[in-house]
Amino acid sequence: MSREDIFITLLRSIATDRAARGLIDDAAVLPHPGGDIVLTHDMMVEDVHYLPDDPPADVAWKLVAGNLSDLAAKGATPLGLLLGYAMTADAAWDVAFAAGIGAAAGAYGVPLLGGDTVRMPDNAPRALGLTALGTAPASGAPSRAGAQAGDHLWVSGTIGDAGMGLAILRGTARGDDALVARYRRPDPRLHLGQALAPLVTAMADVSDGLLIDARRIARASGQGLAIDLGLVPLSDSLRAACGDGVEPRMAAATAGDDYELLFTAPSGADDAILSAASRADVRVTRIGTVTTGGNLALTWRGDALDLPARLGWLHDD
Amino acid sequence: MSREDIFITLLRSIATDRAARGLIDDAAVLPHPGGDIVLTHDMMVEDVHYLPDDPPADVAWKLVAGNLSDLAAKGATPLGLLLGYAMTADAAWDVAFAAGIGAAAGAYGVPLLGGDTVRMPDNAPRALGLTALGTAPASGAPSRAGAQAGDHLWVSGTIGDAGMGLAILRGTARGDDALVARYRRPDPRLHLGQALAPLVTAMADVSDGLLIDARRIARASGQGLAIDLGLVPLSDSLRAACGDGVEPRMAAATAGDDYELLFTAPSGADDAILSAASRADVRVTRIGTVTTGGNLALTWRGDALDLPARLGWLHDD
Repeated sequence: MSREDIFITLLRSIATDRAARGLIDDAAVLPHPGGDIVLTHDMMVEDVHYLPDDPPADVAWKLVAGNLSDLAAKGATPLGLLLGYAMTADAAWDVAFAAGIGAAAGAYGVPLLGGDTVRMPDNAPRALGLTALGTAPASGAPSRAGAQAGDHLWVSGTIGDAGMGLAILRGTARGDDALVARYRRPDPRLHLGQALAPLVTAMADVSDGLLIDARRIARASGQGLAIDLGLVPLSDSLRAACGDGVEPRMAAATAGDDYELLFTAPSGADDAILSAASRADVRVTRIGTVTTGGNLALTWRGDALDLPARLGWLHDD
Repeated sequence: MSREDIFITLLRSIATDRAARGLIDDAAVLPHPGGDIVLTHDMMVEDVHYLPDDPPADVAWKLVAGNLSDLAAKGATPLGLLLGYAMTADAAWDVAFAAGIGAAAGAYGVPLLGGDTVRMPDNAPRALGLTALGTAPASGAPSRAGAQAGDHLWVSGTIGDAGMGLAILRGTARGDDALVARYRRPDPRLHLGQALAPLVTAMADVSDGLLIDARRIARASGQGLAIDLGLVPLSDSLRAACGDGVEPRMAAATAGDDYELLFTAPSGADDAILSAASRADVRVTRIGTVTTGGNLALTWRGDALDLPARLGWLHDD
């Protein structure tokens, strides 16, 4: 086990309350009279989760969007945000970041409720924290653990754009601005999550990579997943940048930062899923099936594919 | 204005939702059917909020206790915690810290619900974040803004112990272990806050210093406060360490980290206040009066005292 795994295993031994969902879910779901509360907290560290020269308003946007994406995966309606901000020596960055928090919170109609501002020692990297809370849908907040064999596996939007956007910013690839925008300004699928929540058996957001997040659903549900890599939805911009063969598709499915919704639903719900997605004005694509095997199985044009050594942005074994 | 003030002023312009309470309160209070939700988020940074050689379990305790103290000031009943943890290169520290979070959460019966664990670049200082949420009392969550001229000003427990504990750890003072324990393992006044909430007109916790937190109540309420420094409650340990003159009392009243409750209540509520404190098994002491003046006025043995240049641990003008 990695050091992170040891630490998280220890935290799991502490977080035994049912609302913590074993720390395997995107968010905690706390029973509350008048409506369950959905809670999530994300951190971003300079040079780890964003590039030091990323515009501060984009870093702020991404912090807000990443948290709201966790709420979207629960079908939750956001109630508010709490910001933990560690100031450094760059006052202009602070101001642009705060304005960016305001812009992102305003774009999604979510109030900033409070938080804490502290001062980091000089030359320390920035560490940013954001808590988001929301109300669970009346039908209950979906978890990662409810997928049933025979269910269909779906994903929203397109996959791999943000990963390519990061590669473009790092100078290792070329492509159009839409890809960079997907990396810097992800759009959490709040309306879609709310529309899907009553229909799905499991749901998660794709933050670390399609394949790794799919495996988390499979493991949490005690099921397997068969994914047809050829069905994974790619944008025109991504195809223009890197083509449409097995290699770019595998790169897209392991890149992360997509903030799309990955979900399972009974096969009989296909029409209802498509109708809900249409109401939310987001495309959804069926990419596979829940199996009894307990494994993640990939195919490409009917042939089995070996899983890559790295399923996503984070190692997770 | 300091850089922090500029940043917080900017955040206030964003945090316009009523639940944010203008960011001048210890916590946000979010209306929710079935009971208002009280929310707070605190950060601690190594070398800023704690000493690098403080035992990790004590750092964890303090992070939990500081957040719960914010809930106590609202009379709230804690529901849970979300931890934002940035790992560094010291695995033993991580493990001891996680165990300390478990111990503190367990001591107050508050579940750890979730959070985020990230990796800091090597040699960066640790940045720790914790969100606590709770339910407001049925009588409503007190704010800092309700003090009325003529009200009595009270404080719980004893003041200055933690500040002296920090001086002992820094090697600049001598005193007994109880003082160090007050610095390292503060005890949030949850039961007292719950018992007082229906009786008070304003309440806050003393985290940055008695005088600075008193002035925040005065300013938020648009009133003044007259405080008799001679009435500020000192522990036997503190008096043994530094005597009981005006100088050690001024040091105690500006030291911070007390995590006691500072509150105002109508003069007719004195008996009810004492009875509530007795039920919570915490001593409370009347130290002053709310005035119409708009200023903080200090006296010592009947004579006016100039305010010190520094009212607390943080500059705040």
